[in-house]
Parts: sequence; C-alpha cells; structure tokens
Amino acid sequence: MRIAVDIMGGDYAPEQIGAGTLAAAQENPRHAFILVGTEQALADLPQLPPNAEKFSAGSVMAMDEPVANLTGKKDSSIWLATQLVKKGQAQAVVSAGSTAAQMASALLLLGRIKGISRPAIVGIMPSLAGPRVLLDIGANADCKPEMLLQFALMGQVYAQEILGLKAPRVALLSNGSEDHKGNELVKAAHQLLCQNLPDFAGNKEGRDLAEAKDFEVMVCDGFTGNIVLKTMEGTAQTILGMLKEQLGANFRHKAGAALIMPGLKKIKRQMDYAEYGGAPLLGVKGISIICHGSSKAYAIQNAVNLAISCLEQDFAGKIERTVEKTLTSPVAN
Amino acid sequence: MRIAVDIMGGDYAPEQIGAGTLAAAQENPRHAFILVGTEQALADLPQLPPNAEKFSAGSVMAMDEPVANLTGKKDSSIWLATQLVKKGQAQAVVSAGSTAAQMASALLLLGRIKGISRPAIVGIMPSLAGPRVLLDIGANADCKPEMLLQFALMGQVYAQEILGLKAPRVALLSNGSEDHKGNELVKAAHQLLCQNLPDFAGNKEGRDLAEAKDFEVMVCDGFTGNIVLKTMEGTAQTILGMLKEQLGANFRHKAGAALIMPGLKKIKRQMDYAEYGGAPLLGVKGISIICHGSSKAYAIQNAVNLAISCLEQDFAGKIERTVEKTLTSPVAN
Repeated sequence: MRIAVDIMGGDYAPEQIGAGTLAAAQENPRHAFILVGTEQALADLPQLPPNAEKFSAGSVMAMDEPVANLTGKKDSSIWLATQLVKKGQAQAVVSAGSTAAQMASALLLLGRIKGISRPAIVGIMPSLAGPRVLLDIGANADCKPEMLLQFALMGQVYAQEILGLKAPRVALLSNGSEDHKGNELVKAAHQLLCQNLPDFAGNKEGRDLAEAKDFEVMVCDGFTGNIVLKTMEGTAQTILGMLKEQLGANFRHKAGAALIMPGLKKIKRQMDYAEYGGAPLLGVKGISIICHGSSKAYAIQNAVNLAISCLEQDFAGKIERTVEKTLTSPVAN
Repeated sequence: MRIAVDIMGGDYAPEQIGAGTLAAAQENPRHAFILVGTEQALADLPQLPPNAEKFSAGSVMAMDEPVANLTGKKDSSIWLATQLVKKGQAQAVVSAGSTAAQMASALLLLGRIKGISRPAIVGIMPSLAGPRVLLDIGANADCKPEMLLQFALMGQVYAQEILGLKAPRVALLSNGSEDHKGNELVKAAHQLLCQNLPDFAGNKEGRDLAEAKDFEVMVCDGFTGNIVLKTMEGTAQTILGMLKEQLGANFRHKAGAALIMPGLKKIKRQMDYAEYGGAPLLGVKGISIICHGSSKAYAIQNAVNLAISCLEQDFAGKIERTVEKTLTSPVAN
C-alpha cells in the first residue's frame, strides 16, 4: 500500500507531521509513504528511509482559510495528496490540516459513496463502558433526517471494523429518552431509524453519554455533536484541573495526593480524548484520515497505521455494501 | 404576598412538597401560602400554620402526561394554582410537576410578555467562574433567530436580578468561536445579537462552558441547551464517581482519600447541579417557578423563597421593560 501524508497541515506542521510519517515508514517497511509538502519543508526533512519519497506542493491551505479558496489552490498539499489517491498513485491520504479543505478535496476528487448525501466526521467518545462512536461531530451543521440514518449505518461499520465492537447498537441523541422527544429533525430521524435499523437503541440524553450503558454508536447533527464532544472534553478537563489544584492546596492534601496518584492517572487515561490519533472521513470513496489539528508525531504515526488498517480491511468497501444493502431495501425508499 | 404551591407535582409529591411549603410558611410569617392538592393529599398534611391554607384540586397532571390533556383537566392542581395568580388571589405559583403542563398553564392563563415569542426555561450552569445562566434548556426544541435575542435579554435580567451578576455578557453557543461558524439558526442569531446587544460576547464553544471566563449568560435553542446541561451533569457525575471508586480501591488509596476529602467535597459542591431549587419561567406575565422533578422539601422551600424574591424585585416587570426598550428600538425591527 502507498499512503500520502500532507505534512503541511496541523499546529505542529511540518516537523511533527514529517517525524510521525517517517516513524510509521520505519514501522511498516512493506508499505510506501509519500510526504507531500512545500519545497522548503521537504528540504528540511531528515534522510528518508527507502520506502518513503517526497512530493512537492506549491501552496498550503491554512487552518482557518475559507474552503472556497481551494478552487484556486490546486497546488496545495492537501489537494495534491488527495489527488495521488484519485490517480491510484496512493491508496490513502492522512492530514492534520483544515478539516474543511480535506473534506472538500475528498468530495471533489474521490466522490461520495452511493446513497450517502454528505460525508461525516466521526469522533471517539470516552465513556465508562469504553470508547464510543459519535457522529457527525462537525461536517454538517444542518442535517436532514435521512442523513442521520446514513450516519448510523456508517457509524456501525466504524464501531465494528475499527473499534472492534460486536453488533453495535445505535442511539439517537435527544433532549429526552421518550420516543416523541426531540426537535423536528430528531423526531423525523427517530421514525427512519425505527424503520430501518434493527439495532436502534432509541433516544438517549446528554446524561447517558458518559456512562454509555446500552449503545455503541450515537448519531446527531454535526452542530450538536461538535458541541457535545467539546462540552464533555471541557468538563472533564476542568474537573481534573480543579482536583489537581485541590491536591496541591496544602501539605495534608499533597500527602493524600501521593497516595492516590495511581488511581487518578487511571481516570485521566480513561477520559483522555487525545489518545485516538485520527478517524477516517466517512462516506467518501477512498480513505482520508482526519487528524486532530494538535497532532504530534506519535498521533500521526497512529493515524498512518489506522489508514493501513482501513485499507487492509477494505473499510470504504464495507461501508458501501452496508449502505447499499440497507438503503435500497423497500422500507428505506 | 400570597404564593400558591402545587403540592401534587414532583417525584416526592405530595409529602416533600407539602413539607417544604410549610417550612417556607414558618420562615416567612408575613407572607401567605396556598397549598393546592387533591382532597386526600390535603387531608394528610400536618397542622397548618396561620399563614397557610388549603385549596382543593380534582385531578393531577402526571409527569409524563401529554400536555394536550390539560384542556380536559381544568381541575388539575397546576392549572388551579396558576389560575389563583390569574385571578389575583395569589401572586406567584411554584411547582415541581410536569414542566410542559406548568408552561402551558402559565401561557394560557397569565399570557406572554409583549415582544416575547415563546417563554424559556433557564438553567444554572456551574463553572469555575461561578454560576452561569444557560437558556433555553428545554422549552423550545426548535427556535427562530429572534427568539435567541429574546432569550439573551431575559437571561441578562435573570443573571443580574437573581444571581447578582453585574453587567452580564451574553455568549452564543456554537460549534466554533469564529463569527461565521454555526448552523443556520446560529448564523442568523449571531447577526441579530451583534446588532442589538452591546454586551454580546460572541460565539463560544462547548469547551468554554466549564470555565466560563468571559460571559455570564449563554443562549441556544432548547434542544441544544438541554443536551449540553445534561452532558455536563453526566460527565461531572461520572468522573466524580470514578474518583470515588478509585479512592476506595485499596488501603493506600483509602488513606490518601481521607487526607484529601475536604478538597473533594469543595469540588463536589462547586459542580453540584441540585443546589439551585428552581427557576422562574421567563417571558410570561407573572411568576411561575419551575422546580426540578426530584425536588425534596429543602429545594421547595428555596423555590418558594425565590418566588418571594422575584415578587419583591418586580422581576417580571423588569423583563417586560428591558424587552420593550431593546426590541422596540429601530435596529431590532
């Protein structure tokens, strides 16, 4: 397999992205790696291993740049890296740059899977029951009911193939667990999910997320998903920060802290949102791994490994077949 | 003042609601209290103090009963308690029963404040910076942009008069802090808030909620607000629960726990969502205090005191004047 990495995207680009790619190249000698970046960035790279090569880009899509600029930047690193996949010169693309630019490149060059209205970004939600899948977390601020059904199907494949969760059940995020609760979108989506999804776990509330007792996948529109994920992250960080402050407050607390530290570290690890390096953009024909903007070398290495694993499992093909099977059934249409 | 309390609403009705009302009656000898309940519930009450009286209701709106049933239940405790305010026989109503039934009773009997499209339910959000105001938290699952401006104005009055926060700044909950981020509703509301609100703090993300550094009021539609509040609550409870479990895990941890317990209790208190007994329904002509369904006697006593304080400060009148001043200005129309 050949993996194209946009080394210009992310808060720690290009050094950390380059370093992570090279670490992945060393870890995976049977696969090939293409580092896409500006002349300068490529020149600054250390000696490449034999299974890595450089590909020169003329420009970069900045993190907060309007995605409309992409049409005038067909020489940007994210566009060229995705184009390598389109041309068959690579099988997957990895980036920690502007998510909007990465998504637009994937949509325009690789195209949508049949039956999928819009691609979705999947998030990993830490919970007491283990990692859970939340989507969409930001690609689509406004959604139609049928999109939530599509998210559900793609989320199930993701939970099964990538997280290894057996027979994943899908919950619909709502402002009440009763079937009739929700805004207009959720009420309509509830009907669709009932009709088309044997593993539908019904409506779940915000307070069910941290425990995640009886579902593996949670679907919602990208506006709500983004806010929920960041709210969980912020609340967890704030409480752990308060705890740290309290533990250092006086000598008595410090002595207690030393005793309980192993327990605290376990909690921190369980609620750590940075542990997952990246996630495939769901619904496009091909593998495009979206990484956190704050990814460092280790996260990029993980993301590249995720790309390889997606390819080995034919992840995009599995989504395509699942969607085709469910959404062309008489009920869904 | 005379306060009508629906003693039939809530998980611990009628005993705890009755007990809380009688405690409030003893605490406030200069005010009068009307306990509205079924014959049986009223008969079971202990001896009333001289400033409390009974008012008999023929039925009860159950917690999960469709609000449409209210039209056929004009003898229900929540309807009759609200009607006492309408008729001038009481000045405020307090209930821990079905929020939908309480809101419908207030809307139909007391009416909306001019300029307010729909009433809103306000929530208190614990944060590092102290209590913050979040609305709407569930009255309106689908909103129009102008409603978010109305929420902002009502939230400011609430923050100032009830929480005592000076010159409260209003933030708009969105999936990104940039001005152009948001779903269709938020993008339109952002414009309106910019034009009409000198204290507009801009878009804030889910991760800003727990710190709440530079705003006192957060507005959003009732679907998102409900989910966010419950997500914060669930995440906080889960982390504190994990901590408790870890602290009891072995002897070493137990010894540490004993040392840090005062610090932990402080955090728990700071993140405690149950401390606030109730909140006035915003946007109706009159005072209707909505309590948590799980309210016990102490919470009801607090809620009754809140009703008295709202009346003494002419809370509803202040909202009416603020809305009139802002929304009849040339910019808003």
